[in-house]
Amino acid sequence: MSTLETVLRQVKTRVTPTDGERQKMSRLSGRLKGDVERILMESGFSATVSLQGSFARDTWVSGETDLDIFARFSPSMDRNEWTDKVLPAIKNGLRKYKVIERYAEHPFLEFHDDGVRVNIVPCYMVEKGNWKSATDRTPYHTEFMIAHLTPELRVEARLLKKFAKGIGVYGAEIKIGGFSGMLIDTLALYYHSFQETIRHASSWTKDVRIEIGRPESREESKKSEKGIDLIVIDPVDPDRNLAAAVRPGKLWNFVAASRQFLLSPDAQYFFPPAFKKKTRKEFSRSIENSGRELVAIAFRHAALVQDVLWGQLMKVERSLVEMATREEFQVFRSALWSSGNTESAVLLEVDRTALSNARLQKGPPVAKRGDSQSFLEPNLAARDTIRGPW
Amino acid sequence: MSTLETVLRQVKTRVTPTDGERQKMSRLSGRLKGDVERILMESGFSATVSLQGSFARDTWVSGETDLDIFARFSPSMDRNEWTDKVLPAIKNGLRKYKVIERYAEHPFLEFHDDGVRVNIVPCYMVEKGNWKSATDRTPYHTEFMIAHLTPELRVEARLLKKFAKGIGVYGAEIKIGGFSGMLIDTLALYYHSFQETIRHASSWTKDVRIEIGRPESREESKKSEKGIDLIVIDPVDPDRNLAAAVRPGKLWNFVAASRQFLLSPDAQYFFPPAFKKKTRKEFSRSIENSGRELVAIAFRHAALVQDVLWGQLMKVERSLVEMATREEFQVFRSALWSSGNTESAVLLEVDRTALSNARLQKGPPVAKRGDSQSFLEPNLAARDTIRGPW
Repeated sequence: MSTLETVLRQVKTRVTPTDGERQKMSRLSGRLKGDVERILMESGFSATVSLQGSFARDTWVSGETDLDIFARFSPSMDRNEWTDKVLPAIKNGLRKYKVIERYAEHPFLEFHDDGVRVNIVPCYMVEKGNWKSATDRTPYHTEFMIAHLTPELRVEARLLKKFAKGIGVYGAEIKIGGFSGMLIDTLALYYHSFQETIRHASSWTKDVRIEIGRPESREESKKSEKGIDLIVIDPVDPDRNLAAAVRPGKLWNFVAASRQFLLSPDAQYFFPPAFKKKTRKEFSRSIENSGRELVAIAFRHAALVQDVLWGQLMKVERSLVEMATREEFQVFRSALWSSGNTESAVLLEVDRTALSNARLQKGPPVAKRGDSQSFLEPNLAARDTIRGPW
Repeated sequence: MSTLETVLRQVKTRVTPTDGERQKMSRLSGRLKGDVERILMESGFSATVSLQGSFARDTWVSGETDLDIFARFSPSMDRNEWTDKVLPAIKNGLRKYKVIERYAEHPFLEFHDDGVRVNIVPCYMVEKGNWKSATDRTPYHTEFMIAHLTPELRVEARLLKKFAKGIGVYGAEIKIGGFSGMLIDTLALYYHSFQETIRHASSWTKDVRIEIGRPESREESKKSEKGIDLIVIDPVDPDRNLAAAVRPGKLWNFVAASRQFLLSPDAQYFFPPAFKKKTRKEFSRSIENSGRELVAIAFRHAALVQDVLWGQLMKVERSLVEMATREEFQVFRSALWSSGNTESAVLLEVDRTALSNARLQKGPPVAKRGDSQSFLEPNLAARDTIRGPW
């Protein structure tokens, strides 16, 4: 048996939920779904409550599942009612939990029970294509996957998800900008296995187009000037690219990791070593005389919805990196940190923290009389000019 | 009277040789010319000896003249005879002086008498156009200038020469790469005055073409891909550009200085303050904390003919500046120094003398599989790679 097969066999065992785990999740999900149904009924709302997400599709990874509980309302209901009445009612009914309100395209609730993160998400009961909110597709996604994923394919999907998690490209939220669970499952279904998925991903170039039922193709990007890197047609909505939220860095990381993994298969791709905190001393030793300097710009800010906060932080990070580069600092890496609440920081790893006092400023050629003169005059008169051209 | 006129009137007085100086130079030149004639005759060489250069043209600057004594030989004489017999004979005849042999296109002799530098140069007595050596044109140059320069124009030529000396662009030898005396005199003759010359020079752009008897024009450079900046047709040889040896830096310095001088006329352009040596302490204070570092690369080398030496030094300087720039040092200035004998140095003024230990090395995009892989493999394996892309 090859190294690859050995590794995958080991990983399969570890990503597949145990019977005990399944039982625990079934009990928990059954109870919570019942709770939400009861609360909504008692508050006078008519809704269909269902389990969604990777738990419902049975593609969750052992020890790592979220529980998505969706409440589908009539399309005649105003979205403000969700914010004003529905979510407060549920929050009140579940007040024994520490429920927080979150917001992506629309509001939802989040809390933890027995180590499992639970999301309660409102959406509309609409026909395919008549989408009223971003989450209306989810029940159709679940339906589609339940109908198409065989037990064998579910194991492959679990492998692929764990791989994506291990290399840090899993999660569609703006903070991550990676692969959603639905995207992972669709790739596993399309390529029939983990191994075929990463084998193909290894040779992805720009504008790869994937659509269930059609061969992989290259699409000259029509709409976007920026060039979309990966297009995976949503099986329940041909107008939607499941990979739209995947940032190029994450995509190419996935591609590069796929290549490396095939070259030397290793379980570490799925189970990376746990992050080990450094002591203050270890940390300062590691950056001392390394030729690199760390700059942390930490600040307080108003409490913001997560997606808004991370969108803003990324803008700030991008601006700072651009500015530093323009001023001729070499930025080796940049990173963001946030308490998730009112404190955040941008971290820059640079070659130096102080520029030289002097800089050579080249003006237009003397042959261009006007340009040359209008460059020289203010610069020769400037107090911070060290020396003229002569 | 304007400032410009006041300045020029003062400078005119100072650049015009006094009667005493003229007498001294006449006596010296008469005696030396006679010496050379006698030596050649006594050694059995048939030659016409004459005074040439700015002394003969009477465009020399008070206190700064060289004496050029030319010996014109029959074109049937082999050039090796100059080296093997003629020059040794003259050297021997003038052994009371410290005569050194120099070499430009061909060999000549140099010595000093009473503070005046004397050159003794062999050339051929040929008809115009049938040049056999580079100095054959000189007697024709002298003839032409004596015929065309009025006493007034000689004063203007003196002003222009002193201006060129003052701003450091005078001298056609490779070490300087500036304006020859003949070029200066031709410009003064063409534009009729110092003032008109620098007024026109102020608006020189690329490919200026100057020819006695024709209006100034722009010439689309035909032969040279590099673009010749200034073309001044030699009045005794229409195939020759008198400004061919002028390096762009010197030319544009002349242009820029002309502009600045017209904006604020000042005798300092003609009589720059004497260079003041710094003490070791003053010097280190001036570069300390200045944000600039000085690097001197000093070395010994074989004794070389001046023009060859300076040609090599300039090559070394250019390579060092290019290398440093490529490695991301900022080179503010570079300069050359030479003892003229066996010791020289390249000086670089840079922003820093040590680079950061680390450097960000960007590889080809992951989408280019082959390129990306062949970049990654050696770099990931390299001992000096600090960190891979993940």
